[in-house]
Amino acid sequence: MTTNHTQFLSTAAERMKESAIRRMGAVLAAGRDIISFAPGYPAPDTFPWDDFSAIAADLLGSREPGVLQYGPTRGYRPLLETITSIMAHRGIATKLEELLVTTGSQQGLDLVARVLVDPGDVILVELPTYVGAISAFRNHQASLVGVPQEADGIDLAALDATWERLRRERRRVKFLYVVPNFQNPTGLLIGLAKRQRLLEWAERRDVLIVEDDPYCELFFEDSASAADVRPIKTGDTHGRVIYLSSFSKTLAPGFRVAWIAAPPALAAKFEMAKQAGDLLTGSLDQRLIYEACRRGVLERQLPVLRAHYARKRDVMEAALRRELGTAVSWPKPTGGFFLWLTLAQGLDADKMIPRAVEHGVIYVAGEAFYVNGEGQNTLRLSFSAPTHERIESGVARLAATLRAESAALATTASDGGPGAS
Amino acid sequence: MTTNHTQFLSTAAERMKESAIRRMGAVLAAGRDIISFAPGYPAPDTFPWDDFSAIAADLLGSREPGVLQYGPTRGYRPLLETITSIMAHRGIATKLEELLVTTGSQQGLDLVARVLVDPGDVILVELPTYVGAISAFRNHQASLVGVPQEADGIDLAALDATWERLRRERRRVKFLYVVPNFQNPTGLLIGLAKRQRLLEWAERRDVLIVEDDPYCELFFEDSASAADVRPIKTGDTHGRVIYLSSFSKTLAPGFRVAWIAAPPALAAKFEMAKQAGDLLTGSLDQRLIYEACRRGVLERQLPVLRAHYARKRDVMEAALRRELGTAVSWPKPTGGFFLWLTLAQGLDADKMIPRAVEHGVIYVAGEAFYVNGEGQNTLRLSFSAPTHERIESGVARLAATLRAESAALATTASDGGPGAS
Repeated sequence: MTTNHTQFLSTAAERMKESAIRRMGAVLAAGRDIISFAPGYPAPDTFPWDDFSAIAADLLGSREPGVLQYGPTRGYRPLLETITSIMAHRGIATKLEELLVTTGSQQGLDLVARVLVDPGDVILVELPTYVGAISAFRNHQASLVGVPQEADGIDLAALDATWERLRRERRRVKFLYVVPNFQNPTGLLIGLAKRQRLLEWAERRDVLIVEDDPYCELFFEDSASAADVRPIKTGDTHGRVIYLSSFSKTLAPGFRVAWIAAPPALAAKFEMAKQAGDLLTGSLDQRLIYEACRRGVLERQLPVLRAHYARKRDVMEAALRRELGTAVSWPKPTGGFFLWLTLAQGLDADKMIPRAVEHGVIYVAGEAFYVNGEGQNTLRLSFSAPTHERIESGVARLAATLRAESAALATTASDGGPGAS
Repeated sequence: MTTNHTQFLSTAAERMKESAIRRMGAVLAAGRDIISFAPGYPAPDTFPWDDFSAIAADLLGSREPGVLQYGPTRGYRPLLETITSIMAHRGIATKLEELLVTTGSQQGLDLVARVLVDPGDVILVELPTYVGAISAFRNHQASLVGVPQEADGIDLAALDATWERLRRERRRVKFLYVVPNFQNPTGLLIGLAKRQRLLEWAERRDVLIVEDDPYCELFFEDSASAADVRPIKTGDTHGRVIYLSSFSKTLAPGFRVAWIAAPPALAAKFEMAKQAGDLLTGSLDQRLIYEACRRGVLERQLPVLRAHYARKRDVMEAALRRELGTAVSWPKPTGGFFLWLTLAQGLDADKMIPRAVEHGVIYVAGEAFYVNGEGQNTLRLSFSAPTHERIESGVARLAATLRAESAALATTASDGGPGAS
């Protein structure tokens, strides 16, 4: 008799869902010519292939045991030291005891939840917020409570009102999760004054801040500068902020090398959690990243990437204006990989997916980024990976999808169907 | 004011401890000449450096985006197909929907606990068992209950008696965790008949088996054969067994590439848990491993490794006999990396560590492998990484440590000190 496996599942596993972004991957794998604006993939033609070839040849040629051996859970020491320099450049003084290399920032989010969250604990998040964080936190049975955003990021009055309400309900808020720079999915930037006030708020309300910052280096020079992306962590004199960043968007994601900077007491717990979670991050991968930093590859890449993604943003914005005019709206991305589109009320981006696939284009429906079930008429477009030509064709396909969907809804409405009221 | 971070910790984090093996790493890092029998590191001089150099050059030279890009959570498709062949060679028919690549087997253990364990659920383990599994399971607040081993592995009568007792106490047993081949830490092999009976027992008692099998290919040809290491999973017609294995001990651990084979319903949950845990295992790493399999590197390595580790086992056994004679005992390792030493009653391997470090040798005290607090007079020696010369010197140092410790205990005893009774 076949075993009934459902009875063996943990409460967390019973509730696990497949990510909306990764589900799009399955659509693509089906093999038709579909232009994908779904995953936030960096552009592979920007990867420094020759540098990595040379570095790999040197590392493997050295036969230095550590290149392929187990190593310390905290990370490869020279890489950790390099990360302290990168942090210093961002205005954050970091000691080694505050640092931990993680297997991508996704592992960082998982470790944060593992170390800080008991089932039912509240995590405050932006509306909308990064889906990968939502799944990491939900897998640890956190209760996610959303706070609306303004043009310059999270709404501070709403944040405090939410905290007050939760306190009255006697619910424990462990931390606020924010992506201050070119947020995934909205592309928004939290204003500098607001960053300072967020930190004061966290101090006053005795809440931690988890600052997820993969995109800070990718500001677009026509509309943002290094001064605008100054992390919240720079002002953190009391150990309120857990800071996450990554090499995935600037060197390459396939290495899975990222880091957490946190107060030493928490960093020690993250290390123990990682020890039991995957022992260490790939040894060769850590050395490839370290050498790419040491040899100046990362530094050379940054201006190239800023220009590359800014141009793609321009191409997408121009195509959207041309193809869709005022039928949609979006905040201008000033950095990062994403453009956040709001459709006319009544359109549902998730329900529209089959029609989009039919037209040969995909995106991520916005609802997946909202922990409160809102966002039906929003969607996220990634302009990072496709070529200019494919961005233009993809937007044309999206426009055709929207026209077909609107026409179908109008027909249903005039038929007195479900859209009529 | 500095934040009080303790108040933010989850229940799981409050209980997290540093692993005993990794703690030994800190002793080594202190830089003195210490011969380490502590971690189960493969011998780096056996790594196929030139093959990996050639493969890395081809992969990075190809500029194929997938080499450095994000990829599917399940794993790189050609690698998954290769794993089905490896599994077939071990007598296990596996479908792709049953497979998942993991970031080392440590992640496999973590995913298993995450998907199957609620706080307080019971996991049955061997006495002693692998410390990495103990931490992974404890981090998910499992309650670990130990079952003694005989010369041919876990004691079936004790296993069933334990199950009966737990049932009377109304405690839920989720699974039995076993390392049937060259167990870490004892080096024991579960007998073939016993494997079959274990499976029948799991079926009868409606318990799952988690079979952790990193060492099966590393049998020593003078005392074991491919037939002796036949996995329990080979007989699993009802989906009772979750099988874990790895390339860490046969190709190299720095890549962090391992796998789980499980019934499809569970594999789907492992995938969702991994998606939120680290998105994917390193893309370049998976391709390096795949190519090493495709080009016959793994196949060529296996006989070399078997001979290499068997010789080291011989060197260690000879040194132990010469230096320590009947003062210690151990079961002869017939494969794998470990030799499990039992000292005279009254000696405490953990308390002896400072003296061992003084003598320039370290090991892992056996107590860490026992979930019931036993094993004070046991310790684990890894013969895998050190050279023959260092194995011999290390055993001499260990013998000197034991002589000094016994002499000190005798003095304390004749002084009427704590050891007197």
